[in-house]
This record gives sequence, structure tokens and C-alpha cells, in this order.
Amino acid sequence: MAGKVQGLSDEEREHLLPLLQNAQWVEVVGRDAIYKEFIFKDFNQAFGFMSRVALKAEKMDHHPEWFNVYNKVQITLSTHDCGGLSQRDITLATFIDEASIF
Amino acid sequence: MAGKVQGLSDEEREHLLPLLQNAQWVEVVGRDAIYKEFIFKDFNQAFGFMSRVALKAEKMDHHPEWFNVYNKVQITLSTHDCGGLSQRDITLATFIDEASIF
Repeated sequence: MAGKVQGLSDEEREHLLPLLQNAQWVEVVGRDAIYKEFIFKDFNQAFGFMSRVALKAEKMDHHPEWFNVYNKVQITLSTHDCGGLSQRDITLATFIDEASIF
Repeated sequence: MAGKVQGLSDEEREHLLPLLQNAQWVEVVGRDAIYKEFIFKDFNQAFGFMSRVALKAEKMDHHPEWFNVYNKVQITLSTHDCGGLSQRDITLATFIDEASIF
């Protein structure tokens, strides 16, 4: 992507973070990042979800930090280039929520 | 799978764990489990590797605990059914090592 990524402005934070919190994303303590845990039926469903998110992440060139064991997937989003949350995290979080519905 | 999974015997441990340690697997402190970190060229290669491991894990009905961010994959193996290491972990670790070579 061209140019440096800009962090969220105060106004964007005020508008966007409550929407994410309504969708059960939480702010990470001590770090400008968001986190959410997803529980699926089994590993097939969990890794199917991860595969969809991986394709999207690669296309966006914006990658999650994530942990998986069996049917559980824990995801942290933050933007390395700006050292905190950016619009990219909001976009990816929105996609992740959509992709998590089976 | 039929029957309960058996943990590794003392003899198996003595024989197998040094082989895994030679392949840079380490024993997890305070837990009967093994751990290894893999660094790839990029996310494409890391998630390609994870996809191969996921297919194998699902076929074995034996799933890793793993964390990924961009080109890094950290894997912990242990067997829930016996509360520690079993032959399944050895088999999966061996496959993982093979699948990590690009």
C-alpha cells in the first residue's frame, strides 16, 4: 500500500469503538489493540473460518495475531505501521465478524 | 478413534524426546508438552504451512495449539486424552517438520 497508515482519529475512535464493543470486541489492556474470542462447533469450522480470514488478510496486506486450539480462535488486531488501531483493523474486524457466522 | 490414548512410556520418552530436541522442539516448562517456533518468508508461506498441518491434524483427530502472526507460527503439542505427550504428538511433530520445509 502507498503511504504510511494513519491511526484512528479521536473522532473515529469515539464513533467506531463502541460499535466494535457492541460486537464483543474488547480493548486490550496496555496496548492500542482489539481482541475477540470465537468458539465454533469443531476444528473443521474453526479452521474454515481462519482460512476465509487469511485470504482477506492477505488481500488487505493486514494480518491478525491469532491463537487456535480445536474449536477456539482468539484474535488480536492492531496496525504495526502506526503502532495502534487504524481503519484497517475496523475493516478486518467487520469482515471477521461476518465470516464467523456459519 | 477407539480406546483411550496412552501416554508415552519411560522407554519411549528416552528414545523419542532427544530426537525431537535435535529437531528444535523444546519441552514446555510445567506441562507435559512440546513447543517449536517456525519462521517463514511471509504470511502466504506461513498460512500455507498451517493449512497442510490443519488437514493432517483433522485426519488424525489430533489438533495443535498454535499462534500465528504474519510469518511466525508457534506450535504446542500435547494430548488432551492422556493429559500429556503421546505417540500422536510425535507423529504430528514429525509431519509438521516435514511440512515446514519449502
